[in-house]
Amino acid sequence: MEIGLIGLGKMGGNMRERLRRAGHTVVGFDRDPALADVGSLEELVAKLPSPRVVWVMVPAGDPTRSTIGELKELLGEGDVVVDGGNSKYTDDAVNAASLAENGIGYVDCGVSGGVWGLENGYALMYGGSAEHAAKVMPAFEALKPADTSDGLVHCGSTPGAGHFAKMVHNGIEYAMMQSYAEGWELLDKVDIVENVPEIFASWRTGTVVRSWLLDLLVDQLREDEHLDKIRGYAEDSGEGRWTVEAALDNAVPLPAISASLFARFVSRQEDDVAMKAISAMRNGFGGHAVKKD
Amino acid sequence: MEIGLIGLGKMGGNMRERLRRAGHTVVGFDRDPALADVGSLEELVAKLPSPRVVWVMVPAGDPTRSTIGELKELLGEGDVVVDGGNSKYTDDAVNAASLAENGIGYVDCGVSGGVWGLENGYALMYGGSAEHAAKVMPAFEALKPADTSDGLVHCGSTPGAGHFAKMVHNGIEYAMMQSYAEGWELLDKVDIVENVPEIFASWRTGTVVRSWLLDLLVDQLREDEHLDKIRGYAEDSGEGRWTVEAALDNAVPLPAISASLFARFVSRQEDDVAMKAISAMRNGFGGHAVKKD
Amino acid sequence: MEIGLIGLGKMGGNMRERLRRAGHTVVGFDRDPALADVGSLEELVAKLPSPRVVWVMVPAGDPTRSTIGELKELLGEGDVVVDGGNSKYTDDAVNAASLAENGIGYVDCGVSGGVWGLENGYALMYGGSAEHAAKVMPAFEALKPADTSDGLVHCGSTPGAGHFAKMVHNGIEYAMMQSYAEGWELLDKVDIVENVPEIFASWRTGTVVRSWLLDLLVDQLREDEHLDKIRGYAEDSGEGRWTVEAALDNAVPLPAISASLFARFVSRQEDDVAMKAISAMRNGFGGHAVKKD
Amino acid sequence: MEIGLIGLGKMGGNMRERLRRAGHTVVGFDRDPALADVGSLEELVAKLPSPRVVWVMVPAGDPTRSTIGELKELLGEGDVVVDGGNSKYTDDAVNAASLAENGIGYVDCGVSGGVWGLENGYALMYGGSAEHAAKVMPAFEALKPADTSDGLVHCGSTPGAGHFAKMVHNGIEYAMMQSYAEGWELLDKVDIVENVPEIFASWRTGTVVRSWLLDLLVDQLREDEHLDKIRGYAEDSGEGRWTVEAALDNAVPLPAISASLFARFVSRQEDDVAMKAISAMRNGFGGHAVKKD
Repeated sequence: MEIGLIGLGKMGGNMRERLRRAGHTVVGFDRDPALADVGSLEELVAKLPSPRVVWVMVPAGDPTRSTIGELKELLGEGDVVVDGGNSKYTDDAVNAASLAENGIGYVDCGVSGGVWGLENGYALMYGGSAEHAAKVMPAFEALKPADTSDGLVHCGSTPGAGHFAKMVHNGIEYAMMQSYAEGWELLDKVDIVENVPEIFASWRTGTVVRSWLLDLLVDQLREDEHLDKIRGYAEDSGEGRWTVEAALDNAVPLPAISASLFARFVSRQEDDVAMKAISAMRNGFGGHAVKKD
Repeated sequence: MEIGLIGLGKMGGNMRERLRRAGHTVVGFDRDPALADVGSLEELVAKLPSPRVVWVMVPAGDPTRSTIGELKELLGEGDVVVDGGNSKYTDDAVNAASLAENGIGYVDCGVSGGVWGLENGYALMYGGSAEHAAKVMPAFEALKPADTSDGLVHCGSTPGAGHFAKMVHNGIEYAMMQSYAEGWELLDKVDIVENVPEIFASWRTGTVVRSWLLDLLVDQLREDEHLDKIRGYAEDSGEGRWTVEAALDNAVPLPAISASLFARFVSRQEDDVAMKAISAMRNGFGGHAVKKD
Repeated sequence: MEIGLIGLGKMGGNMRERLRRAGHTVVGFDRDPALADVGSLEELVAKLPSPRVVWVMVPAGDPTRSTIGELKELLGEGDVVVDGGNSKYTDDAVNAASLAENGIGYVDCGVSGGVWGLENGYALMYGGSAEHAAKVMPAFEALKPADTSDGLVHCGSTPGAGHFAKMVHNGIEYAMMQSYAEGWELLDKVDIVENVPEIFASWRTGTVVRSWLLDLLVDQLREDEHLDKIRGYAEDSGEGRWTVEAALDNAVPLPAISASLFARFVSRQEDDVAMKAISAMRNGFGGHAVKKD
Repeated sequence: MEIGLIGLGKMGGNMRERLRRAGHTVVGFDRDPALADVGSLEELVAKLPSPRVVWVMVPAGDPTRSTIGELKELLGEGDVVVDGGNSKYTDDAVNAASLAENGIGYVDCGVSGGVWGLENGYALMYGGSAEHAAKVMPAFEALKPADTSDGLVHCGSTPGAGHFAKMVHNGIEYAMMQSYAEGWELLDKVDIVENVPEIFASWRTGTVVRSWLLDLLVDQLREDEHLDKIRGYAEDSGEGRWTVEAALDNAVPLPAISASLFARFVSRQEDDVAMKAISAMRNGFGGHAVKKD
């Protein structure tokens, strides 16, 4: 198929490559002319046959919103826009409704795969009507992992279903990472246990905790046994917070996922803020030395 | 090699079978004569050549303690006892010291594998001196998964190192299961998402959350989409609690693992006990209707 | 002063009474004519001298929004609307901007006090410009507790500051209640401790945990030692969730407050939903009996 | 009454003073001769009339154990030892049984009050037989707060009941402090709210969250609005950990109390240890910059 692709950064660039290797024609646009195939969205649209499919792969929030706003004016009846970025699921209903005013279809798609996606394929979770999705299907088939029915799923006909599923995927990911991290911290700290990297390595076969994340952690531990070279600091990218927000809206308890998120927040504080208040109260009831700067 | 095996329940019985398939001679004892090869520990010991290796696979706590107490009297210099049960790591120093009084060696070994172990091999985490472990090595090699260096690890020369590592493995397992469970609850509850079992299935390839536990969950969800047939109730087996205890002793924060454990505790309460006190206070400050039985 | 008061339910009715006891003239409106002093908002507005002050005390969300929408048309330059309900702080900027279009001032005010407020006074946390607040001050002074500078605070000139502070107050309240509830559950469960209600009663003097919530809990425990008559079930009213949401927006870790909220969510589930997935996975790796309905 | 008091540090010294103000005769011993009334335990015992009452107020663990071991040899039939230190409740059964071998009674007593106890009285939670406690009662009455039935409670006839109740008191204290600390962090961080110390001050009257801890926090915030002079670092003293341990033993969920404890653990880490593993995994799946030292 022929497909427009907007946003040719690390993810988008690799996706263009994987699509081309599958024989598809990709017209890529990026604000960086060194990466782009065309000089403007107008040019991109002009190069595509009807019905056009344009995949947006730019940062969530304003960049995605403004790109979709421009496409609304450039595309028309029967065309389809895919938002493959990390948009919040609540944006999708807005985008879909806006594009529909001009007869343009909309598919939201969560994409997982990172730097491994080019070779191994991307896991794709999409939402929207089956009719719109059908127009994107050849690209989906090319991007997903080969030789499996996994890696591609229709999460619901409501716009946002795909981003919602991808968001929860990331929430689960946060808590799984926290699970290993907590176990590692304990094993690394106690004197009774030696050889922690090889313990993790041994778990890769025959245990209940085997996983791809475990494989990654083993590789890192074998290079740096006590992770001395890595700072204990982790960003969070939005999906984790949105997962907890969505859970609050739905009265779903997420103790492990929220704990994982909060642990990241704390790791980014220079001094532990809440503990200042704890320390102040301990100072107040006396007898506890307070560390002052 | 020739090896004595005490405890031929679900785990022990399958381990005997796997050892035999590997060409080893196993003399098995169980309190249930229908399962046992010999009628007594005395007979078991008499049938083994020196230095004898006896693997204990009975419930943790008193059964393991009393079995090791009996073996202390029956075995002698140069023999080795393996505790392959789910013993608390603090028991191992006691057992090792006691057996050493009679010149008997001691290896503690955490075993993972469940009903899949017979075919796929067991993951083994052991602690104790290399000298003692060497006498057990042929059995370790037979029990572990084939065709991999994974699945067998020496966790330290201090008795208890193996059980400690297995304990933490289970703590991680609790939190990983909680991670998926929380994500599933949220996805299953919201209207925007359909087709939840297939979303989980799709994650098995190309995503960050792929794992063996995910595979298991997919199988269950495909049989019972909303898990209507399963009660929301989970036991805990000791290792999770010991993991948190060990963390407290070592000032290691385990927010996700402890949250996972507490969630199991709550699931076993007929009525939510702490919430009675919450409700009582709300009643006290007025205006909140309290549900009375 | 003369003041209009809309919403004469449990809270509003008592506030009218406290204002009147202080010598103020209150014109009250409620959809229930049996409670109201006037038959319509038009009549209420007509009865007030300029500049008019109207205090809205109706449920948060649509009822408050529509009431403020009506007042926007009925009031004018120099008048002031107070939202004393449990509105989300993000509503206040919208309300303030809308009313400002017609020259009407706006003060948001979180009110704490429940059924005790009539006698003891209400704790008031307000936001908005000092100029607008000045017009409401006589009412604030009448409603707040007497003989103290506590109980009334200007939380910031940005609309929503008052509701934000009240929201966090409630978040803290949730976690404090959870603190006592957890301690009570443990004390009530163990055999070693007797006389739990009197233990809590003893803590009311000389301890670090003394508080008004403790006083309330003691009263309840003395009536029903094991809280056998109260169901372990607790609603949450919005502020707790908003507190966690605001914390997510600001990367502030709230482990205890969120745990308190999640405990309430779980208490309302007939069966423990996430535990169904835990149980399903345990079933999958075998050997664990699963409770089926 | 006449009473021996061992340990005259900050707590013990003030308790001696409060007992003397009440007209009791206190024979005090301390390793520091400058504080002591007598030069040895032998001398202390010799100065007391039968039946002797000796109150031990030394650090928990070995110091308390060895002191009680010495008293076992010096005291006799009908005498009573009180352990008023912060001992773990499991120590009390051992102490009581050991002293009973020589006919010596035992009372365990948790003491709360800190530097405020001298003037305001100490809250006392005691365990042990009524017969033994009766001999200590005049001292209890002198030490407890005056003019109230609060502040003194018999927690059970089993030795350890008093320390158990005091332990849970401290667990609750940890979570209450965490509750305020989380709320303060959020309020202090957001731009919408000003005047945070006065918000906390206002809560002291008429709100649900009023408490003695709140009073303390207000005093500290008024001196140092953003707590800039205090490091975010908090020790924990044992009781919090034991509370969680006891909860694990009894399958009681303590999400807020454990979260409070873990927050303190994290605050004492120079770098956030678990986050190193999180960061390592993120590094592994690529695309995430990892902060290296």
